[in-house]
Amino acid sequence: MAQRFNMSIVSSAPIGIFDSGIGGLTVARAVKTVLPQEQIIYFGDTAHLPYGDKSTAAIQAYSIKITQLLLDKGCKLILIACNSASAAGYELVKEYVGNKAKVLNVIDPVVDYLREQYPGKTVGLIGTKQTVNSEVYLEKVKALNQNINLQSLATPLLVPLIEEGFCQGEIAERIIAKYLSDPRLQALQAIILGCTHYPLIKTAIQSFYDSKVEVIDSSEIVAQALNSYLGYNNLYRKSPAQPDYFMVSDFTASFESSTKQFFGESIHLELIHLEG
Amino acid sequence: MAQRFNMSIVSSAPIGIFDSGIGGLTVARAVKTVLPQEQIIYFGDTAHLPYGDKSTAAIQAYSIKITQLLLDKGCKLILIACNSASAAGYELVKEYVGNKAKVLNVIDPVVDYLREQYPGKTVGLIGTKQTVNSEVYLEKVKALNQNINLQSLATPLLVPLIEEGFCQGEIAERIIAKYLSDPRLQALQAIILGCTHYPLIKTAIQSFYDSKVEVIDSSEIVAQALNSYLGYNNLYRKSPAQPDYFMVSDFTASFESSTKQFFGESIHLELIHLEG
Repeated sequence: MAQRFNMSIVSSAPIGIFDSGIGGLTVARAVKTVLPQEQIIYFGDTAHLPYGDKSTAAIQAYSIKITQLLLDKGCKLILIACNSASAAGYELVKEYVGNKAKVLNVIDPVVDYLREQYPGKTVGLIGTKQTVNSEVYLEKVKALNQNINLQSLATPLLVPLIEEGFCQGEIAERIIAKYLSDPRLQALQAIILGCTHYPLIKTAIQSFYDSKVEVIDSSEIVAQALNSYLGYNNLYRKSPAQPDYFMVSDFTASFESSTKQFFGESIHLELIHLEG
Repeated sequence: MAQRFNMSIVSSAPIGIFDSGIGGLTVARAVKTVLPQEQIIYFGDTAHLPYGDKSTAAIQAYSIKITQLLLDKGCKLILIACNSASAAGYELVKEYVGNKAKVLNVIDPVVDYLREQYPGKTVGLIGTKQTVNSEVYLEKVKALNQNINLQSLATPLLVPLIEEGFCQGEIAERIIAKYLSDPRLQALQAIILGCTHYPLIKTAIQSFYDSKVEVIDSSEIVAQALNSYLGYNNLYRKSPAQPDYFMVSDFTASFESSTKQFFGESIHLELIHLEG
């Protein structure tokens, strides 16, 4: 967090947030709650959703195209609000952006939180195949040298489960129970929700653990990290808020109607093609 | 089936088959079983998988790009082995191809089968949101004027369930039971598996119905229709079989290892980008 900005970056510029789809709206919501005066420009790559099954190279290529689009819109900061893209594309996006804007991801703030709260403990991680197989959480946690035992499991059915509105009820409970009963996720002090969709089933996961395991919701932690970062760099927007702007690479009425579930209010999605 | 080919099309040319991903390999498998001497060129659009949630316009654009690629490879026939793409893109692809090749889809052979087997009966259909919401089955069945009562339900959790290998066991049974107990799917004489993934849970669906409802597996019906078509047009390949060729628009090891499940044998997938 010590690196300071290129001084040409203006505090009134918008914050760019991108995700593979509309799941990242849970992060955008958390950012708006903490920083209501900031303007958000959001890109959901619904043409390539879900990233969880895609290759690293494909996610990197999509991430660069989206980043250029957000830079063209003058964003002061780009937040990769997708764990799969944070795992596959963060280093590349940071290199690509250079000093034109700051780049944040959704993984580092959570790792910082573990360093503060869980040294010497066992912590679980659930996420997509891309996020878990990349071992990016594992490497970052190891680099802390805090003797944190990170146990991870890919839980790829949870995204479609949530997208189809099965956030509660017997089927959701059984799938969650099946995943969380895995031998790799035992004796945990906390569990990281390593996917921006998962805050929507946080309650069901807390119920499974009878509230005895902390369920770490990265959207709140990331919003707080962003807040600290803007404050430290004197980059809070001081002028009145401008309307937020939401783009997707494929438009369906179903995506638009799901925005309420993820963002807490219905929003209009603008179709912008990524290809070409 | 009465339209004859452009006479410049040669019988030794390959058959092109495409799908949103690797689910269409169930159709390719059925085709190989019926027509072992034919050469298959397969394209799985894994960069845009799944099509079930995509917009009609997006699926049409992907379908045209894939079709051009298959035409460039000299295919005598293009089989759209995906219900969502058959629903959204068949008419466009047929128009685009003109007389350069024949285009078949996975819906018409099933509708023909209903005309023969189920006049005056109630038949169910399960498929993706794209397939069900397009109402293409409904319109084609109505046009038969055979008083067939088609009852359809989008069952979007089944594709991820199958892709994650939950084809059997309690969770699969419960999700299948929840969908098939829907009031829209009662008093059926038959049910159409309106997605190329679903043959992998055919046994579980048959069990739910205690084998009292015919479970219509479109891959077998489509392979038979293709067989009849080639015979009628004198387009059977007479020379010895050439190796089949399988392409995907995004490559992951997980896709390649899943090919066994869908195609019955492990195959090599070649990465070919669609964009540009």
